[in-house]
Amino acid sequence: MHNSAKPDSVGLVTPTSYHFDEALTLRSGKVLSGFDLMVETYGELNAERSNAVLICHALSGDHHAAGYHSEEDDKPGWWDSCIGPGKAIDTNKFFVVCLNNLGGCSGSTGPVSINPETGKHYGPDFPVVTVRDWVKSQVMLADRLGIDKWAAVVGGSLGGMQVLRWAISYPERLGHAVCIAAAPKLSAQNIAFNEVARHSIISDPNFHNGHYLEHGTYPKQGLMLARMVGHITYLSDSAMRAKFGTDVSDFGGNFGRDLRSGKLSFGFNVDFQVESYLRYQGERFSENFDANTYLLMTKALDYFDPSVDFDGDLSKAFENSNCKFMLMSFSTDWRFPPERSRELVEHLLDAKRHVSYLEIEADQGHDAFLLPVPRYIRAFSKYMNRIHRELNNHAS
Amino acid sequence: MHNSAKPDSVGLVTPTSYHFDEALTLRSGKVLSGFDLMVETYGELNAERSNAVLICHALSGDHHAAGYHSEEDDKPGWWDSCIGPGKAIDTNKFFVVCLNNLGGCSGSTGPVSINPETGKHYGPDFPVVTVRDWVKSQVMLADRLGIDKWAAVVGGSLGGMQVLRWAISYPERLGHAVCIAAAPKLSAQNIAFNEVARHSIISDPNFHNGHYLEHGTYPKQGLMLARMVGHITYLSDSAMRAKFGTDVSDFGGNFGRDLRSGKLSFGFNVDFQVESYLRYQGERFSENFDANTYLLMTKALDYFDPSVDFDGDLSKAFENSNCKFMLMSFSTDWRFPPERSRELVEHLLDAKRHVSYLEIEADQGHDAFLLPVPRYIRAFSKYMNRIHRELNNHAS
Repeated sequence: MHNSAKPDSVGLVTPTSYHFDEALTLRSGKVLSGFDLMVETYGELNAERSNAVLICHALSGDHHAAGYHSEEDDKPGWWDSCIGPGKAIDTNKFFVVCLNNLGGCSGSTGPVSINPETGKHYGPDFPVVTVRDWVKSQVMLADRLGIDKWAAVVGGSLGGMQVLRWAISYPERLGHAVCIAAAPKLSAQNIAFNEVARHSIISDPNFHNGHYLEHGTYPKQGLMLARMVGHITYLSDSAMRAKFGTDVSDFGGNFGRDLRSGKLSFGFNVDFQVESYLRYQGERFSENFDANTYLLMTKALDYFDPSVDFDGDLSKAFENSNCKFMLMSFSTDWRFPPERSRELVEHLLDAKRHVSYLEIEADQGHDAFLLPVPRYIRAFSKYMNRIHRELNNHAS
Repeated sequence: MHNSAKPDSVGLVTPTSYHFDEALTLRSGKVLSGFDLMVETYGELNAERSNAVLICHALSGDHHAAGYHSEEDDKPGWWDSCIGPGKAIDTNKFFVVCLNNLGGCSGSTGPVSINPETGKHYGPDFPVVTVRDWVKSQVMLADRLGIDKWAAVVGGSLGGMQVLRWAISYPERLGHAVCIAAAPKLSAQNIAFNEVARHSIISDPNFHNGHYLEHGTYPKQGLMLARMVGHITYLSDSAMRAKFGTDVSDFGGNFGRDLRSGKLSFGFNVDFQVESYLRYQGERFSENFDANTYLLMTKALDYFDPSVDFDGDLSKAFENSNCKFMLMSFSTDWRFPPERSRELVEHLLDAKRHVSYLEIEADQGHDAFLLPVPRYIRAFSKYMNRIHRELNNHAS
């Protein structure tokens, strides 16, 4: 039996492309005269059109959040651990919508698309998009789908930032904001890691100032390095020790120093399992992702700071919000540690918002939000069930 | 007045090169038939030859630990904050010796040296050296200088690992081991960062498998990226926020998000000060360091694990040690956090060794060991003074 046939899977899914003719003015001032969004949906929209949940993806995500594209597919969507019948975001209860964001490379308009004005790939000429721009385009998608108000907007990491932007800019259009492993804005260290990633792409001789498609080349090494650096920040030290080590000492435990071939090479190639894993992750990613999109996504992260319109006061930004908030963070996440979520909680309390917050003990670092951590899944499920009960109470 | 004339400076210094004709068998099994070590000394060796202190350098250090090479020199040696008349390692009391390690690129035999067997640069053919090999060569240097026993062997980070190796392998040849901001061995995360650094160098098209000197090229971009990644791990998040930010909010304080030109570029170039700083640090480093040496140094870090000869039991490794130990760590160091020093303390206690340990509150991250953090300098000075008093008591 293929995994798509399991009772907790949304099964086989097919994305749909929506074309928008309306012009979209971006935060940079540039205008996209029209664009496409690639979208997947799971579950059924109810008669009141009140049970829709929007999923916002993170840096390297896309519209394919759950299920399988075919029976040959051995990897489900990126958030299959949380979306499906009986799962935290229960598709028996909710109509779930996920899209590839503008600037992406999985079917929505982005650098690999053809620029209708030139007949060539946009490439590096695709405008820098921000979280605000994405949410604007998501509003247009909601209008198209006839969804006046999301039961919830949900996302982790960069996805959580989109959730915050929804709550600030479109207060009447969501009931709940579920924001996981996010931060109110990046710190200097976060930006520094993004800069290393960008610099590795830009300095790859095959990058050609972003015009690699025209040159028939690809900055594979640069993108691979960018992903290797990123990947380290997604995992915790403890997760890496557990994943790559069986060595255990009396004190301090396992260091994750397992060797690939049982002995040291005394050369500059791979000695430790962790090196081999990182290269593999980098290689695989670099074969499936667009370098210009990676640059765009990291800039959107760096630029995100919803307090800028409120003299740097994030509490003020939340004063017009109308939804209830659920925040979750993970103990070993050092990319966006619990402290960053606690900052958000303080601002929300200061703005007199309804906020629930759970800090989850988990070894997996930032990646925990994508994984079936029992405590996390349990809390997430309970909160989503509460949303569903509210919908029913409201309707009855 | 030039800084070299200040009363707490060791003043103008000149390195000396020592040639060794004796063959050195390395841990890899390879043999160096002869080699040079570039050395600086500060202070005077006393009549009993008992007041010598060996300084071991870290990844990018060299023999130039204190003072100035000329009056045009505006940058002193790398540990000038701690070495000089009246400083923590007081050159009025101690005879201080610092060398460039084998495989280095500052005058000791390494990849940029000429291989006497081929008449060409060693380049990538220079053998991989380990902490154990360095210490072996340092023993040969001690013999040459007529120093039977160091009053102390002192080092931070990778330098601290050399200190541990001295204490384990040459117990009769040091009185004190001062080991700062170090670790018993790298964790998977540490190795992962080193692998990214190596991969960025090796995948630079100008690397030519390490034969860049023969090709008249240089893997500048690769080395720059390697240093940018490394630099992030030397600084703490809080140090970066303080250095690059004046933005302050009610909660959570400063995020280090100062812009370089006051506004966002909506392009892929530098927006934030932290990006500009990282690029500058990477550029400067890449102009002054050899790429093959960088590879060697990171491998020495990865390979270090003195427990391997003792069935993985580090406590056993320390059982033959004869010196007293002083360990220090810094609260915001996330490269080698206090936990790693505490592991060492536990192993030392288990081996019934004399050990003093101080965990210092400091914002500067791993780099703190190079900086004039008052509490650190005070404790360091007191410990070194105690060593000096012991020498006098012993002599009288």
